[in-house]
Amino acid sequence: MIDKHLHSLVQKMTLEEKVAQLIQLATPFYEASKDRGQITGPMVEMGITEDIVTSSGSVLGASGAQEVINIQKHHLQNNRLGIPLLFMADIVHGYKTIFPVPLAIGCSWDLELAEESARIAAKEAAVSGVHVTFAPMVDLVRDPRWGRVMETTGEDPHLNSEFARAFVRGFQGNDLKNQTDRVAACVKHFAAYGAPEGGRDYNTVNMSERQLRESYLPAYKAALDEGCEMVMTAFNTVDGVPASGNKWLMRDLLREEWNFEGVLISDWGAVKELIPHGVAEDEKEAAYKALTAGVDIEMMTACYVNHLKDLINEGEISEAVVDESVLRILRLKDRLGLFDAPFRGADVEAEREIVLSNENRRAARELAAKSCVLLKNEGFLPLDRSQKVAVIGPFAQNGDILGPWSWAGSKEQSVQVLDGLRNKLDASSIYSAEGCGIETITEAQLKDALDTASRADVIVLALGEHSDMSGEAGCRADIRLPKVQLELISHLKQLGKPMAAVLFNGRPLDLHGVIDQVDAVLEAWYPGTEGGAAIADLLYGDVNPSAKLTMSFPYSVGQVPVYYNKFNTGRPKDAPDAQERYVSQYLDIPNDPLLPFGFGLSYTTFSYHEASLSSQALTVGEPINLSVTVENTGQAAGEEIVQLYIRDVAGEVVRPLKELKAFKKIFLQPGEKKRIDFAITEEQLRYYHSDLSYHSDPGKFIAFVGPNSQEGIALPFRLNK
Amino acid sequence: MIDKHLHSLVQKMTLEEKVAQLIQLATPFYEASKDRGQITGPMVEMGITEDIVTSSGSVLGASGAQEVINIQKHHLQNNRLGIPLLFMADIVHGYKTIFPVPLAIGCSWDLELAEESARIAAKEAAVSGVHVTFAPMVDLVRDPRWGRVMETTGEDPHLNSEFARAFVRGFQGNDLKNQTDRVAACVKHFAAYGAPEGGRDYNTVNMSERQLRESYLPAYKAALDEGCEMVMTAFNTVDGVPASGNKWLMRDLLREEWNFEGVLISDWGAVKELIPHGVAEDEKEAAYKALTAGVDIEMMTACYVNHLKDLINEGEISEAVVDESVLRILRLKDRLGLFDAPFRGADVEAEREIVLSNENRRAARELAAKSCVLLKNEGFLPLDRSQKVAVIGPFAQNGDILGPWSWAGSKEQSVQVLDGLRNKLDASSIYSAEGCGIETITEAQLKDALDTASRADVIVLALGEHSDMSGEAGCRADIRLPKVQLELISHLKQLGKPMAAVLFNGRPLDLHGVIDQVDAVLEAWYPGTEGGAAIADLLYGDVNPSAKLTMSFPYSVGQVPVYYNKFNTGRPKDAPDAQERYVSQYLDIPNDPLLPFGFGLSYTTFSYHEASLSSQALTVGEPINLSVTVENTGQAAGEEIVQLYIRDVAGEVVRPLKELKAFKKIFLQPGEKKRIDFAITEEQLRYYHSDLSYHSDPGKFIAFVGPNSQEGIALPFRLNK
Repeated sequence: MIDKHLHSLVQKMTLEEKVAQLIQLATPFYEASKDRGQITGPMVEMGITEDIVTSSGSVLGASGAQEVINIQKHHLQNNRLGIPLLFMADIVHGYKTIFPVPLAIGCSWDLELAEESARIAAKEAAVSGVHVTFAPMVDLVRDPRWGRVMETTGEDPHLNSEFARAFVRGFQGNDLKNQTDRVAACVKHFAAYGAPEGGRDYNTVNMSERQLRESYLPAYKAALDEGCEMVMTAFNTVDGVPASGNKWLMRDLLREEWNFEGVLISDWGAVKELIPHGVAEDEKEAAYKALTAGVDIEMMTACYVNHLKDLINEGEISEAVVDESVLRILRLKDRLGLFDAPFRGADVEAEREIVLSNENRRAARELAAKSCVLLKNEGFLPLDRSQKVAVIGPFAQNGDILGPWSWAGSKEQSVQVLDGLRNKLDASSIYSAEGCGIETITEAQLKDALDTASRADVIVLALGEHSDMSGEAGCRADIRLPKVQLELISHLKQLGKPMAAVLFNGRPLDLHGVIDQVDAVLEAWYPGTEGGAAIADLLYGDVNPSAKLTMSFPYSVGQVPVYYNKFNTGRPKDAPDAQERYVSQYLDIPNDPLLPFGFGLSYTTFSYHEASLSSQALTVGEPINLSVTVENTGQAAGEEIVQLYIRDVAGEVVRPLKELKAFKKIFLQPGEKKRIDFAITEEQLRYYHSDLSYHSDPGKFIAFVGPNSQEGIALPFRLNK
Repeated sequence: MIDKHLHSLVQKMTLEEKVAQLIQLATPFYEASKDRGQITGPMVEMGITEDIVTSSGSVLGASGAQEVINIQKHHLQNNRLGIPLLFMADIVHGYKTIFPVPLAIGCSWDLELAEESARIAAKEAAVSGVHVTFAPMVDLVRDPRWGRVMETTGEDPHLNSEFARAFVRGFQGNDLKNQTDRVAACVKHFAAYGAPEGGRDYNTVNMSERQLRESYLPAYKAALDEGCEMVMTAFNTVDGVPASGNKWLMRDLLREEWNFEGVLISDWGAVKELIPHGVAEDEKEAAYKALTAGVDIEMMTACYVNHLKDLINEGEISEAVVDESVLRILRLKDRLGLFDAPFRGADVEAEREIVLSNENRRAARELAAKSCVLLKNEGFLPLDRSQKVAVIGPFAQNGDILGPWSWAGSKEQSVQVLDGLRNKLDASSIYSAEGCGIETITEAQLKDALDTASRADVIVLALGEHSDMSGEAGCRADIRLPKVQLELISHLKQLGKPMAAVLFNGRPLDLHGVIDQVDAVLEAWYPGTEGGAAIADLLYGDVNPSAKLTMSFPYSVGQVPVYYNKFNTGRPKDAPDAQERYVSQYLDIPNDPLLPFGFGLSYTTFSYHEASLSSQALTVGEPINLSVTVENTGQAAGEEIVQLYIRDVAGEVVRPLKELKAFKKIFLQPGEKKRIDFAITEEQLRYYHSDLSYHSDPGKFIAFVGPNSQEGIALPFRLNK
């Protein structure tokens, strides 16, 4: 539809119809939904009438081709102007074929597979009737107490930006009208939701605008640069103003400065939450603030539908503001082709074929294997197929490996650890015991575990957090494994057999009591539907581990926040002239994390040598080239993630000790070596100054190329201007 | 001296002499010092010549009348223009008579005694030759991992501001020229040094300017409003720029906006630390940045003396800038009367009488008793003099109760816990054992402790951190008592005797393993020279405890930061319609601290009733009055700290759930009641808006009057405009 027609459609709408476009309700509000009727209470409470539902613009959480077709069909029969509904849902790391959680995907450093995972998620969701996914979540995170760290790709602005782009490409493709197997993406949570104080979800966020721009905004911007259709607001405050009522954030920055023209939606209930936040005295003021600040769609509360009409009639808000929001929503519907094909990709028959297909499962298995990080290996892994293995722990036989935000996935259809091993080994070589629950243990469980383990040659522990211990509102002040699991390790340790721990969890943990007790640790995160298969592939060396951490593992919770791109301080502990006492340190623990950003082991080894720069002087417009030879010095073929960091030695503001600027994932046969090149450009050296100007300064820099954020070859150079 | 003469003195100085005024060196650099000669290495290393020392402006850390007289005399004999030296030192909570650490003084909520403690500290220091003290430290703190929380009065801007004023009054008096028993004060650390990330000293600080103004700046400003002569820079960055090179902070805010005309000094080495911070490539750039930003005196590094001359000759810095700094220093010397009386208060004979006098000790004992907070008391305290008491623990006989920043104090001259009890009881009623060291324990120690305790009727545990575990660079990631002390408690608990724990520590601790194991807990902090006497007074009821916490005690380190003046968030856990899961919470611990701000017990009880407002509508210029009756409902006479908090229900930015606005400390006999009045004014309702404007908004407010930040009677009112 050409834009003129959309404008005239807006003109035909009554004010009530316009305002109703701006509400998003869940399926139970819709008469044709299978969930209908569960919601009478809330409807009355919210003041929602049938007329509003009939005129509403979008639906939350509907899925299943038949369900969507039913609701849409009924809607079009009743909607006066025949405006189709938009169906939105949280398709975060897969629809029914569940991929690893995003933090695990981040650890793959594999943008192509990440894009592929989003493409498959989109394909399954689209055929099931979904038009928009509330993803990617690209919040930068530094505090593992926060439950939603599993939902992002980690602590680095550059890496998060690259993944943001990959996910948007995978979800959206390049032509939403014709590629009906894609869905529109909605980047979230704008902005800085990943920095709640104390790591407690929804808690206040405070930082300067400079830090916001430097670290937190780049990934949202990258998603938008890739064409992301929508933006979702965050629950938190941004410098004292809740994001969902923050005019500076949404009007000045997002719309004016960044020229975002798409639809902006609140997170669940976030408009009404302006009241408990304490920036609105009532729903009417909340509606006024949210719309004025730029929120187009109010999700799951009714401040707009109940109060915008009055606000317009009273002259507080211009109807033109509502018209703009409506137009943006109609344009998105048009770009998705809904005016011509209101059911879009929804197809009951195709759905059965596409969803959870073997092809999709294969992709999930591949990405899972590339997302598990080998954290320790004292020559123990890969396992030998001739050995008898005891799989012990609450995750030995447990489908809770999909992770949070996998509501359409099925734990029953997931490949559990034991399943994975049974597909690989003779059943007689595998023993298994639960050992303990996630947070409980009995004498009988422990005895069974010891008996079982004593019959085997090697022990594989399958430990972790249940998935409710992370995810939204899943915050922990203690970030160790539950105590009973540490006890289980201690008891099994007494048997003196080699042990590997496979960990299922949604956050970096304090691994004391685990990593010091076992011979190998494989961080499996929540690996998704094919998790057990991928883990078996890794344990038996059919796939060589290649993933590397994208979030630091703290030494203990008392070290939080800890992240690699920190500042030197005026009294760095590792300076040559550092005093014993008066340096920036803890008395009782190191400053460094237990495991740093970028770290991960392989079954082979890689060496870095012959690093060089094409010039030690960089000028604007004339990049220099960094070359390094990477050699597989071990016995197995494997992938290595080669990382380039840069340090700006002296800036106008303090600059991180290292910043990731580029990375390459390469495959090397044993003994093979490759020359790897990175261009270093002046653009990479730009940063936000205290006046918020963004530019580079001439001076000294150091490039580091290496296998992780702590090790690398240092190559100094200068920027001249 | 009139200002014209100071100007003409500057005119007579050579550039070298001017620049030398701007360096501050420690005593070993001075030929006449008793410490002379320890410093040859550093002098060469720093490029300091004898000429520079002879022309230098101020001395760090000298004390003792004779020492100061010797150095000053020698200096005046050699200094070409006869400009006297300024002697500065860290007199933080007493000179030789050590008062409780400032965090403890804060808990007294007693501004008069705080002022008195500073007056006595000044008197002892001044007679010993000190002219300026680097105090008060008024940094707002929210993270008990940071070692320097013991050095401030706590987490509240209002309370810290009131104490800042009291300390400045106590140190300075009102006429430094004629009151030679006072010293000039230097407020520190400007700014926001109390907010290092991760609670790790010197670490980066990041917050918005609005938060800085709202919470962190008020106490510095209060000290200056009280006439504080000097300001010291902080080690940390303020929005990316190290404070000691932060032009916005020192020129724009401190000098332009606040009209500060006094001397600004760097903290120890902080000018040169601009290099490791990464905002200066070398010492010359560090000198340029620090002076340009407004630092008058460079402490203990030589960037100024080695580079300012070149910078001026090269036209990078105007000599007028140096002249201004020199003039400010000369003016301070003049205000202290040093041109006429270069030895000022230094008096070898009077020093012997004044320092550590009985009178001063009495004041220290009184303040110590009013600074110890009774955290728990299950009807156990006060102790009965007829009972046999076992004093067990590493602090039973330990002089390390002065706390950090008590370098002139003497542990040997302090009253230890056992001393205090022995002065109160018959020796035959007191048993004592060490039980364990601070961080070590032996079988023999434990056995001795159990034997000793088993002979007594009641046990008093004396536990804590050694003083190096807090203070500068004394940061801990684990904020529990050392493990061996928790073990000692467990073992003694087996005896089944009533136990009280007296705690000596520099930070709020995670008290699990202590408070749940004993019948009473007295938080003694580091109580100073008369600590043991004050504790005995409290344990035996000769003084009724009245102190209340001014920093929250966290539930665990995983809850940090936790503070009472927090925000509600959009999903408060305690809302009537709160969901079970999707609220701002931890899964494993409460949101509330273990012990809140304002909390403290007494041997009596107080009830609050008949609270009322003179009007429910406040207007500008017409304060309303809040009245409440406070009644002593127990059996002992005692003091109560009555606290007034206000909540702004809806602001333009989110507002704290409660903010302390006023408090009164009252004394009540058993059964006595008093009517307490608080004026509520429009000024108290002002806050910083997102555009940084500072004003109040009409709307709903709630006043809370009560005994601490969690309990109180709520009284709603409106501000009309």
